[in-house]
Amino acid sequence: MTSEEAKKPTERSKADRDTIFIGKKPPMSYVLAVITQFSEGTNPVHVKARGRSISTAVDVAELIKNKFLKDVKASVGIATEVIEAERGKMNVSTIDITLSK
Amino acid sequence: MTSEEAKKPTERSKADRDTIFIGKKPPMSYVLAVITQFSEGTNPVHVKARGRSISTAVDVAELIKNKFLKDVKASVGIATEVIEAERGKMNVSTIDITLSK
Repeated sequence: MTSEEAKKPTERSKADRDTIFIGKKPPMSYVLAVITQFSEGTNPVHVKARGRSISTAVDVAELIKNKFLKDVKASVGIATEVIEAERGKMNVSTIDITLSK
Repeated sequence: MTSEEAKKPTERSKADRDTIFIGKKPPMSYVLAVITQFSEGTNPVHVKARGRSISTAVDVAELIKNKFLKDVKASVGIATEVIEAERGKMNVSTIDITLSK
């Protein structure tokens, strides 16, 4: 194993820790994941979602700000990603909520 | 009718024109409403939504930016509103996307 190969997994797992991807679980499981990241010293924490999960991402950010970590500020970016679907390329909206203390 | 009474409807309809509230129609009907507002000189135009409609609001903003009015910039705010539901007060997440040329 070269030193470059040895480095890659660490870099990837750091990016994973910085970002909580929102899926179809209940909002509170993502809230818990965000709180865990902050408690481990990660700052800022990104909450990212695509398509219909975008509204859950906003719910998670609002729960964090208003109930659990009241010193957290949110800044929001929106964008479009092109994904490969069965019927060809599709545009999907994305949100990236940066939560920082 | 006093002059104050005469003024109120105008003020209200101005605020209405500045803001497109996203509901359950297809995204393109809201895209058309935003384009109409810009063409009538409204700037910025706010795209607002609550709850599950938040992802449609992001779709509308992204369609405007990427397909229809490429000189438009979006800035995004999120918040929580308390609404009166049948079973008491409920928190609902909201989004306010400010589209400006």
